[in-house]
Amino acid sequence: MRIALAQINPTVGDLAGNCRKILDFIGHAKAAAAQLVVFPELSIIGYPPKDLLLKPQFIEDNLRALRLIAARVTGIDVIVGYAERNTAPVGRPLHNAVAVLREGKIISRHFKTLLPTYDVFDESRYFEPGSPQPGQNLVRIGDTLAGLSICEDLWNDERMIARRLYHQNPIADLHRAGAQVMINTSASPFVVGKHEFRVKLFTSQVKQFGQPLIYVNQVGGNDELVFDGCSVVIGADGQIIAQASDFEEQLLIADLPDGGGAAAGGNIYQPAGGIESIHKALVLGLRDYVRKCGFKSVVLGLSGGIDSAVTAALAVAALGSDKVVGVSMPSRFSSDHSITDAQKLAENLKIQFHIVPIKQLHDAYEQTLAVPFAACKPDVTEENLQARIRGALLMAFSNKFNHLLLTTGNKSEIAVGYCTLYGDMCGGLAVISDVPKTTIWELSRWINQHAGQELIPESSIVKVPSAELRPNQTDQDSLPPYPLLDAILYRYVEEEKGVGQIISEGFDEQTVLKVVKLIDRSEYKRRQAAPGIKVTSRAFGFGRRMPIAQNYLQVIPKRGEASPASEENLIAGWGYEPRKD
Amino acid sequence: MRIALAQINPTVGDLAGNCRKILDFIGHAKAAAAQLVVFPELSIIGYPPKDLLLKPQFIEDNLRALRLIAARVTGIDVIVGYAERNTAPVGRPLHNAVAVLREGKIISRHFKTLLPTYDVFDESRYFEPGSPQPGQNLVRIGDTLAGLSICEDLWNDERMIARRLYHQNPIADLHRAGAQVMINTSASPFVVGKHEFRVKLFTSQVKQFGQPLIYVNQVGGNDELVFDGCSVVIGADGQIIAQASDFEEQLLIADLPDGGGAAAGGNIYQPAGGIESIHKALVLGLRDYVRKCGFKSVVLGLSGGIDSAVTAALAVAALGSDKVVGVSMPSRFSSDHSITDAQKLAENLKIQFHIVPIKQLHDAYEQTLAVPFAACKPDVTEENLQARIRGALLMAFSNKFNHLLLTTGNKSEIAVGYCTLYGDMCGGLAVISDVPKTTIWELSRWINQHAGQELIPESSIVKVPSAELRPNQTDQDSLPPYPLLDAILYRYVEEEKGVGQIISEGFDEQTVLKVVKLIDRSEYKRRQAAPGIKVTSRAFGFGRRMPIAQNYLQVIPKRGEASPASEENLIAGWGYEPRKD
Repeated sequence: MRIALAQINPTVGDLAGNCRKILDFIGHAKAAAAQLVVFPELSIIGYPPKDLLLKPQFIEDNLRALRLIAARVTGIDVIVGYAERNTAPVGRPLHNAVAVLREGKIISRHFKTLLPTYDVFDESRYFEPGSPQPGQNLVRIGDTLAGLSICEDLWNDERMIARRLYHQNPIADLHRAGAQVMINTSASPFVVGKHEFRVKLFTSQVKQFGQPLIYVNQVGGNDELVFDGCSVVIGADGQIIAQASDFEEQLLIADLPDGGGAAAGGNIYQPAGGIESIHKALVLGLRDYVRKCGFKSVVLGLSGGIDSAVTAALAVAALGSDKVVGVSMPSRFSSDHSITDAQKLAENLKIQFHIVPIKQLHDAYEQTLAVPFAACKPDVTEENLQARIRGALLMAFSNKFNHLLLTTGNKSEIAVGYCTLYGDMCGGLAVISDVPKTTIWELSRWINQHAGQELIPESSIVKVPSAELRPNQTDQDSLPPYPLLDAILYRYVEEEKGVGQIISEGFDEQTVLKVVKLIDRSEYKRRQAAPGIKVTSRAFGFGRRMPIAQNYLQVIPKRGEASPASEENLIAGWGYEPRKD
Repeated sequence: MRIALAQINPTVGDLAGNCRKILDFIGHAKAAAAQLVVFPELSIIGYPPKDLLLKPQFIEDNLRALRLIAARVTGIDVIVGYAERNTAPVGRPLHNAVAVLREGKIISRHFKTLLPTYDVFDESRYFEPGSPQPGQNLVRIGDTLAGLSICEDLWNDERMIARRLYHQNPIADLHRAGAQVMINTSASPFVVGKHEFRVKLFTSQVKQFGQPLIYVNQVGGNDELVFDGCSVVIGADGQIIAQASDFEEQLLIADLPDGGGAAAGGNIYQPAGGIESIHKALVLGLRDYVRKCGFKSVVLGLSGGIDSAVTAALAVAALGSDKVVGVSMPSRFSSDHSITDAQKLAENLKIQFHIVPIKQLHDAYEQTLAVPFAACKPDVTEENLQARIRGALLMAFSNKFNHLLLTTGNKSEIAVGYCTLYGDMCGGLAVISDVPKTTIWELSRWINQHAGQELIPESSIVKVPSAELRPNQTDQDSLPPYPLLDAILYRYVEEEKGVGQIISEGFDEQTVLKVVKLIDRSEYKRRQAAPGIKVTSRAFGFGRRMPIAQNYLQVIPKRGEASPASEENLIAGWGYEPRKD
C-alpha cells in the first residue's frame, strides 16, 4: 500500500486557503500513485483554532469546506481533519474529527477520544470525546484494515508518561478490534527534544501492539506555537520506514506491504536536534507570524547587546535582509560600543539601519515632569522613561512603514521582570521570550558557526549584559549570574518545584527566595507581554495561567525540621520570607 | 437547624490570610449558636487559583491548612472548600473538594462532579470529576441528612439552560439518595443579571426535588472576576428564607426546621440589579485589585471625556478621594473644555489634580523622527505618538509615587481597536473595559443621580466623543454611532452570531462587515491589554481566547440565495468582502 503523508502548513481559520492547499496536496498524492493521503488534525481549520470553534457559523463553514473537498475526491482515499457537530442531546457541541473521503463521498467520520486539556491545550473547552463502539474507528483502505486515531489518542502510554490522565486507551482498543495499521493525525507543537520523545513513544506503542504506525503532523507557526512536522512511518518491527523533514511542508510517500507487516520503503529525512532545532523553530515561528498577520517586514531596536543581535539574525533568516530594519537609539548612558556593535551587526546582516538618539526626548520628559516630581529623587522611573521613549520611537517606525515590531527580551529577563512594560516590551511578537539567556549565548555561537562568519559581533556575545539605563549599570547589579538564574528558573517554572525543594538541591536560600519572588511579582508584566514563540516545556503566556492579585507565600521548613514551623506559626506568618535562624 | 453562611472574600493563594479569616468566621458562627457554618468553593485557596494548582507544594500547603483548621474546630460543624489529591492511579491529579470538619477532625471529603470548562473556567485543566457512590455525598448534620454539591453541580438543569453539557445530574442523585436539604458551595462570578438567573435556577431545582437549598457564594474581586456573594437559603416551598448582601463579606444566619421542610427565618437583603449592580461590581473589583496587588492609590489620565470621568468616580467610590490622582495632559489639539472639564471633575471628586502639557514632548518626537520620516506624510503614527507620550507620563507618575495606573478604555473602543497600544491602553487595570459605551452613559447618569449632585460634569456626558488626536476629530469619523456599534458588538461577541445572521436582523451590511473586521483585526491589541473587570456574559480577555494570526472570513449568501455562492466560488474567494450584486 502506497501512502502519502500530507504535512501541511494551514493558516488558522483560513478555510478557503486551507481547502485549496488540501486539494493541491491530494493532486500531488494522486500523481505519486498513492492509494491514500492523510492530512493532520483539524487540517481544514488549522490548529489551534481556539474560540473560533465557538462560532456556529464557523462550524457550518468548516462542514461546507469538508463537503466541498469530498466532492472533488476521485481515485484516491483521503483522511482529513475537521470539527464535527455532536448530534447527541447531551455533551459539548463538537467533536474533534477526521473524515474518510472516497469517490466524491464522505464514507465515515471518527472522533478523538482523549482531549488534551493542559499546558497550551484547551480541548475540553470545545469537544465531547468520542466513545467509539469496537471497530468503529477501523476503515478498510484497499486490503488493509486501518485503525484511526487523533493526536493525544496515541499518547496515553503508561510506560512513557509519568501519570495516565485518561481512563481509556484508544490504541489498545483499535488493536483488539483488529487494526492492521495505525494511522494517527496530529497537531503536536515543537518543544526542544520533543521529536526524540515522540519517536520513543511511537516505537513503544508499535512494539506493544505489533502494527505499523503512520503519524502525520501539522507544520508551521500559529501564534505562540510552532508545529515541527517530523511526520513518520514506523514499521511493525519498530524501524523507521519513512521520515518527513522538520519545519517545512512536505508530501512524504511511503510504501507498506498490504496487510501491514514489515517495511517496504520511503525517504528518511533527519530532523535537527538541540540548538539547531530551536533555531529552526524560531525562524519558522517568526516567518509564519509575520506572513499570517499580513506583514511583509519587521523593525527592531538594536542595543549592541546579544538579545537584539540574535533576534535580528533570526529575522534575517526568516524574511531576508531587505525585510528587516534595525534602529539604534543611544542615550546619555549608552556606551560607544552599543552603537558600534549595532552598526557592525547591521552591516554583517546587510539590513537597513537608523541611528535615532533619544537625548532630546529624555531631556523633554525630565523638563515636562520637573514640577510634579520636584520633591523626588531619581529612581527606576527615569530608567523606565528611556525604555518607553525607545518603545514609542520603534512603534512610530512600525506605524509609519507598516513593519511588525519585534521585541527582543529573553525568558530569563521576562521571568524576573527585568524589562520595562510599554518600553522594551513593546512589539507584536516576542521572538526569543521562551529562550533563557544561557541558551541565547549558545544560539549566538551556533548562528555564527553555521554562517561560517561573525554575523553577530563577538563583542556583543562576550560583553557584560547591561540595560544601560544608568551609569555603569549591569544586569548582575540586580540579578544573580544568568547560569544560576536559569537553573532556578528551570526548576521553578518548568519543573514546578517548590522553594524548599530547590533549596534542598543545594541552591542558596536567599537567592532562591529572591528569584521566586521576582518571578511571582512580575506576572502583571507578562500578562501584557507580546505573544512569544514556545520552545520549552513551559513557556510564559497561554500555557502558564497565573493569577496576578495573589499572595501565595511558600512554606520553608526550618533547618533541621522535616515539616515547616509549628501550625500556630503557619497561621501567624505563613510565608517564604527568609528564615531567621 | 441554625446554619451560618460564611460569604467570605479570600485572596487567591493567601493560605495564611484565608485560614485566619475562616477561623474568624467559625468563631462568629459559634457565637451566633449556629450548628453548621458553610464556606464557599475552594475557600482555603480563593477562586480562581489557576495554575497555582499545578504546584505540588501549593497543594501540600493547602492540605496542611485544612488540617490546621480542622484541629481548631469544636462545638460546630464546618464545611470548607479546598483542593484534594486524586489518589487513583489514573485521572487528573486533583479534586475540587469540600471537607466536613467536626470536633477536631476531618470527618468526610466530597468532590465536585461537574467541572465547568468554558468562558473563564478551566476546571478540566486541573480536576478529575468525582464519581460518587449513591449516598456518598450525604452527611448528617444534627438530625438532618444534607446533600453536598459544589457550584456547577447545581447548574445542569435542562429546563433552565440551552444545552446539557454533562451526562450526570448530581442534584438528582442526592435527591434519590435521600438528602433532606441541599448545600451548595460556590464561586460564581458576577455578570449583570446573574443573581436573578440564579434565583430562578435554584427555585427550579428546589421545586423539582422538594428540598430546601443553602447556597454559599464567594464575594470579592480576584483579577478579572468579581464574585457578588448573594448567598441565599431557599425553603422547600421555593420561597427565599434568607438572602445575603451583594458585594460584601457577611455571615448570614438562617434557621431551618430540623428534617428539612418549610421556612423558619433569617434576614433577607435585597441585592442591587441593572446599572447599580454594575457600579457595585466595578467598585469592588477595583478596590480588591488595588488592595490584593499591594497598592494603596491610583493615578489616571483625565481627558475631559466621559470614560476617564466615570473611571475616576469609580476609583473614588472604591478607595476614597485622597487615594486618587488625576492628570490632564493637553496637546496642541486639545479643546479648552478638555482641561476645564477635567479640572471640574477633579474638584467635584476632591482628588489631587495635575496639568502636564505634552507640547514640548510632541515637538521633540517630531524633531527626533524628522530625518527617518522625511519623505512621509502625517498619518495615524503621529496620533499614536501623542497617546504614547501620555501613557509614558502616567507610568512615570505610577513608578514615582507607587500609584496603580488605571486605564480608561470602554468595551466598544477596545472591541474595534479604537485605542492606542502602549498609549491610552497603558495601565495595570482596565476598569471599564467590559462596559460598552452606551452603558457608560447610563452609568454616568446613575452616578450623578445616586450622588445627588453633578459629580461627573454634564458637559463631559453630553459632548461629542473625540480622541482629540488631530484637529476636529470625532469618534464617529471612524466608527458608526455608538448605539449601532454596541448593538452589532453584542450580537457578534456576546451572542456569537455570524455576519449573515446579524445582517438578516436588519443591520446595514457594510456597517456589519466593517465592525466585524475591526473586531477581528484588533485581537493583537487586546492580547496585550490590561486585565479588565468582567460584567457582561462575554468579556474580552481570559474568557475569550482568539487566535491573532488567523484568516477566517465569513461567508455571506448572495441576495436571494439560501446558501452562499457556488462551491467553486467559495474556494476561489471565500470571504466576507461586501457582495457586489
